[in-house]
Amino acid sequence: MTHHPFDEAIALSAAGDGATHPAWANMVGPFGGITAATLLNAAWVHPQRLGEPLALTVNYAGALVDGAFRVDARPVRTTRTTQHWIITLHQGGEVTTTATAVFAIRRDTWASAELVAPAVPPAAEVAVTPAPGRVVWPERYEMRFVHGPWVRFAPTAAPALADDSLTALWIRDEPPRPLDALALTALCDAFYPRIFRRRGTFTPAGTVSMTVHFHAGATALAAQGTRPVLGVARGQRFAQGFFDQHAEVWSDGGELLASSQQSVYFKA
Amino acid sequence: MTHHPFDEAIALSAAGDGATHPAWANMVGPFGGITAATLLNAAWVHPQRLGEPLALTVNYAGALVDGAFRVDARPVRTTRTTQHWIITLHQGGEVTTTATAVFAIRRDTWASAELVAPAVPPAAEVAVTPAPGRVVWPERYEMRFVHGPWVRFAPTAAPALADDSLTALWIRDEPPRPLDALALTALCDAFYPRIFRRRGTFTPAGTVSMTVHFHAGATALAAQGTRPVLGVARGQRFAQGFFDQHAEVWSDGGELLASSQQSVYFKA
Repeated sequence: MTHHPFDEAIALSAAGDGATHPAWANMVGPFGGITAATLLNAAWVHPQRLGEPLALTVNYAGALVDGAFRVDARPVRTTRTTQHWIITLHQGGEVTTTATAVFAIRRDTWASAELVAPAVPPAAEVAVTPAPGRVVWPERYEMRFVHGPWVRFAPTAAPALADDSLTALWIRDEPPRPLDALALTALCDAFYPRIFRRRGTFTPAGTVSMTVHFHAGATALAAQGTRPVLGVARGQRFAQGFFDQHAEVWSDGGELLASSQQSVYFKA
Repeated sequence: MTHHPFDEAIALSAAGDGATHPAWANMVGPFGGITAATLLNAAWVHPQRLGEPLALTVNYAGALVDGAFRVDARPVRTTRTTQHWIITLHQGGEVTTTATAVFAIRRDTWASAELVAPAVPPAAEVAVTPAPGRVVWPERYEMRFVHGPWVRFAPTAAPALADDSLTALWIRDEPPRPLDALALTALCDAFYPRIFRRRGTFTPAGTVSMTVHFHAGATALAAQGTRPVLGVARGQRFAQGFFDQHAEVWSDGGELLASSQQSVYFKA
């Protein structure tokens, strides 16, 4: 265990006890990405764990507030090559977060990449944008926006609708930390709500459900080291109080590392 | 309750008892889409259910074989506008399938469609392709392929790699049945494994996890009636024994009804 704030935040006792970490604070409670990584970590550190993450769905059922919580991770079915988990996070006698995770043993097979990484300038040629300072967690990432940077909310200005809700950025943990499936999980939630960008104004919004599919194993993730990865996210449809948010995370070598899909509540 | 084979297949007793239905048979056990719809139905018919489906993740943990099973659906957290479920399907003393579902109350808000439906000929101008007859469940759909039809396996021919794994088709239940979230769930799994198309040959494959995000409420789905919807699916990356499968389902009026993401095992 390092003293990196990421590892501190996702740490759990053998009984599953953890606590929110001030370095990952959101407006209310912690950043959803660190909660997702904490739930995955409960399976990751479990003595019965088989293989590595393949798919994770995290559902934000109720508000998680600053303080202690307990995570219960249960392997409900293990086959020769896959393992299925049901994971719940409890706080104050209530379930605040649910998850299912699939772990699997990867092996060499026929392989083909169909989706190609978008053509963007390399990270070194893109300026770092400081976190906007409204909440703490963005300071845990170094962000270099290629398209669709942080929306600067001007309270007196009228909303300025954008043509799309797309964001593309080079991103890495701050301070740097070698990439693994846990950090990748949190990264998939590090895109600010697409409705901020699309409507050009602050809109109350919160993730209800996030699914991450992991396309790369531990070896490929370790090879990425602490270099920035390319994240791309956009919404597909905004309607009746909810929108979706699709994201891909690419290695700097153009390898698709993860794809993610969210359903997000909004009030507008 | 109608006598439609879809409703027969997803039917559950008050205690959650159900059984596989021969009209939905796959190579081994039932079509995964009908299993997903059955798990969602367990929450749908539950006396404590609030709202309508927003997000569903179904994990295929172990083989479900023909015969009886029991579904346990538990609402673990209900707020004013959302409800979170953990659902498990048991057979022979083992968990074969797990799911989480989020139900929500939709309401009128600001709305915007960012993703646009692909330009394809209307259903009436596209010929119906008969099911290939290898398994039963495709006979439960009328399929009109615009792109990437069923792969006709020629056992003696060498694999013919395709440039992409894309399929686009007009599809409806056969016999016709008015669209709802349950039927839409099954539809999201009605695309044959993308690796069949990409490699041009039969490849052992099975869905490990499927997530469906519902973009349209009951009123919009009911308005679609029994007319075909447009389904589009493709794989993004095939590697180390797994590939993903992204899909969208559109109304014939160009409204995004659902988007879906799968992680699929393969052997090649």
